[in-house]
Amino acid sequence: MRVLGIDPGLRNLGWGVIDVVGVKISHVANGVCRSDGDDLSERLLSLFNQLSEIVTRLAPDTAGVEQTFVNKDGAGTLKLGQARGIAMLVPARAGLSIGEYAPNTVKKSVVGVGHADKKQVEHMVRLQLPGVEIHGPDAADALAIAICHSHHAQSAGRLQAAMAKAGA
Amino acid sequence: MRVLGIDPGLRNLGWGVIDVVGVKISHVANGVCRSDGDDLSERLLSLFNQLSEIVTRLAPDTAGVEQTFVNKDGAGTLKLGQARGIAMLVPARAGLSIGEYAPNTVKKSVVGVGHADKKQVEHMVRLQLPGVEIHGPDAADALAIAICHSHHAQSAGRLQAAMAKAGA
Repeated sequence: MRVLGIDPGLRNLGWGVIDVVGVKISHVANGVCRSDGDDLSERLLSLFNQLSEIVTRLAPDTAGVEQTFVNKDGAGTLKLGQARGIAMLVPARAGLSIGEYAPNTVKKSVVGVGHADKKQVEHMVRLQLPGVEIHGPDAADALAIAICHSHHAQSAGRLQAAMAKAGA
Repeated sequence: MRVLGIDPGLRNLGWGVIDVVGVKISHVANGVCRSDGDDLSERLLSLFNQLSEIVTRLAPDTAGVEQTFVNKDGAGTLKLGQARGIAMLVPARAGLSIGEYAPNTVKKSVVGVGHADKKQVEHMVRLQLPGVEIHGPDAADALAIAICHSHHAQSAGRLQAAMAKAGA
């Protein structure tokens, strides 16, 4: 199973792809889609094109997207929401199943506690993906989201398998 | 010139298309793209597909999109932001120029004052597009946005023409 993780953002949209075989995970690729300038529609189109290219090229089976932190800054939330719309749309267009995870769920899944800081998360990502070269903090977050999603997708799969075995 | 107006929303995304020839405007079509259910990615994909079909079928030359009202409800702002991301992306993908307008700018352009209520806006839209059948308040807003965008696009065009004539 190939898993795409996405950390949405308008300026920097982090992405990471891992392969999952049983309990083994391995790194495929990671990076950041960037958009800049004054024209919002061009920035959204650029993110859409960059992310679509990644999904086409790396052909993940499923995707995890971080649930955006809703803060007190309405304008910031709106920007993030627009980028997140693209982050959800691109894998949905490719027919992928999508899981959404709160930041604390991602941290708990990767580090073991929900209040871990960014450095701890990146450290644990490096431990679980030996030799990985990470293209910045947003890409590290995206790989953490992919790892989190692989845990949850596997649990869901095991549950389905167990239910099928039980003749449910 | 054919103008598309969009009033973004996750549940109801209003759209309206008008033709503009000189100072004359005429109605082409209007409606509402709807999305429902628990799965956010499916809702965004549905809005994307519906709006893409409209842009392909009606082939507008330019689009106006309402600037979303940023309120104190962070979760609501985020939802609206995600829908607005789609509303900006679809015309951008089709290569259309896009104008963004605050609600008060739209009202001022259509009614003459910035504090008009929805009924006044719909009334003035009906006056300017005789015989139009409007598919609900979101479609009425979208037609108002299209009218507003046609005014601004024409002003910009006249300015460019005047500058060209002045040999600038």
